[in-house]
Amino acid sequence: MEALFFDAKRAALKRVPLPTIPDGYALVRVIASGICSTDLQLLRGYYDFKGIPGHEFVGRVEGPHQSPWIGKRVVGEINLACRACEWCRKGWARHCPNRKVLGILGHPGAHAQWLSLPEVNLHEVPNEITDEEALFTEPLAAACEILDQIPVGLGTRAAVLGPGKIGRLITQVLRTAGAEVTMVGRPMVGRAKGREKTPKAAFDLVVECTGSPEGMPRAIEMVRPRGTILWKTTHHGPAKFDAAALVVNEITVVGSRCGRFPPALELLRRRRVEVGSLLAAEFPLSKAAQAMREADKAGVLKVVLRP
Amino acid sequence: MEALFFDAKRAALKRVPLPTIPDGYALVRVIASGICSTDLQLLRGYYDFKGIPGHEFVGRVEGPHQSPWIGKRVVGEINLACRACEWCRKGWARHCPNRKVLGILGHPGAHAQWLSLPEVNLHEVPNEITDEEALFTEPLAAACEILDQIPVGLGTRAAVLGPGKIGRLITQVLRTAGAEVTMVGRPMVGRAKGREKTPKAAFDLVVECTGSPEGMPRAIEMVRPRGTILWKTTHHGPAKFDAAALVVNEITVVGSRCGRFPPALELLRRRRVEVGSLLAAEFPLSKAAQAMREADKAGVLKVVLRP
Repeated sequence: MEALFFDAKRAALKRVPLPTIPDGYALVRVIASGICSTDLQLLRGYYDFKGIPGHEFVGRVEGPHQSPWIGKRVVGEINLACRACEWCRKGWARHCPNRKVLGILGHPGAHAQWLSLPEVNLHEVPNEITDEEALFTEPLAAACEILDQIPVGLGTRAAVLGPGKIGRLITQVLRTAGAEVTMVGRPMVGRAKGREKTPKAAFDLVVECTGSPEGMPRAIEMVRPRGTILWKTTHHGPAKFDAAALVVNEITVVGSRCGRFPPALELLRRRRVEVGSLLAAEFPLSKAAQAMREADKAGVLKVVLRP
Repeated sequence: MEALFFDAKRAALKRVPLPTIPDGYALVRVIASGICSTDLQLLRGYYDFKGIPGHEFVGRVEGPHQSPWIGKRVVGEINLACRACEWCRKGWARHCPNRKVLGILGHPGAHAQWLSLPEVNLHEVPNEITDEEALFTEPLAAACEILDQIPVGLGTRAAVLGPGKIGRLITQVLRTAGAEVTMVGRPMVGRAKGREKTPKAAFDLVVECTGSPEGMPRAIEMVRPRGTILWKTTHHGPAKFDAAALVVNEITVVGSRCGRFPPALELLRRRRVEVGSLLAAEFPLSKAAQAMREADKAGVLKVVLRP
């Protein structure tokens, strides 16, 4: 089959064997995959990644023939847990230390014609959700994770710092929970730079999703004493902020990664969040390298690949 | 009166006027004061401090003569709030943005013969508590603050990273709440270096109170996925840890500073914590500069000044 392949910080289409299908796994034909900022980070050397990237997808199960999933349209949770260790037994499979991660760590990803995943990772996509919408299940689940981590409700004054794809999803998710949400961010393409004032100590909750080391010092300025910063960054490398500011104001910082799929699918099915406006462009898989360059441009939202 | 005075990173005894006593303030004769790591930081230039340091004290109220506090033995909360702003009205006076802080910010401190404080900051010391024990009320309150911030109880596996004064108080406080506490720290004076192994992902809660920028990366290694790091650092300057580790493991970091005095006084009165073994040395106020040098030695615990 054909797949996008990253090697030594280069992206190119490559002919690779079909995925192997161990017991309990399904073979999924990819209908479409979405390019995530994490894919761009992997291409720059994050995790010393080499292989097929991609972890946002919608597909159809086509094997093995005895699977109860055959023919179903699915999305899939991206963490492949060992299901045997202490964390898995405690119900924290997403934090299994032996986990593989679809298209990120030790398991070939979704920017390909086919992929394999454990059947336990699959979720059927309700008919009300289009293929393009279903592509947003994984990042929307990552946004919903916030509601699993901290209390958000009516009266929560929240700011989302970073107006990218995940920032826009998080804004909508926080609003479904009753929060009053302000989007704050670096100037977008075409807007005058340096004009935006940072509100000081004005928010109960600041979600830092700029993907930049400069985001955290700004979030610390924006959050009130004893407030919470939800840290959803793809940045890796040394943090750049003053420890004292965080301690003196007794700020809580909560790291946040992947989330459960069912709440995200439910929000999409009930049309409580709108994702159509986040679609930027669609490319055939054969032009995946070009699509990666497009996705890397400032201000470009979701770029979709179709095998 | 005589007082220890910091100026341009130098500590020296100085003759200064008696404190002024505005309405609502009390004049307190200092019985004894304790040297805190924060004092050492102030001497190194933290907050560009110039003036009389010291915020841990026990004293006796001697003015104004009409005060109901006259003759009482007291300790005092160190934040002088404006009592008028939004934070004060919400009950967060310790985070008042207009606050002064005894011996730290805009209000002369306790390493002196006399000090002044608002009467609302004072707490009478029960007879069961000695002068030397009462000196620990402020740092013990800062340790108790943890119990006001996060759930700690039976079954909490906690580590205290940093075996100094505050670390030892925190260890005892967490144990009163039912936690199973391990002390982990840099090798003490006289112990072989580099022998201690860091337990990985082994704790629900890690209290980082090494006062060093190297503490946080180690705390991140020690805490389990989705665990909490309580950050009680006097370090100021750029944080030194990898953002990705915190986000991927969805760790919560909680900054922590001062606490309420009543729980600390109650723990001392009921002898639920033991502070006598933390006393290292006592100096007359006239030898305060020498006492500061003693307190700055590695492994030295609480140094006390007596006017």
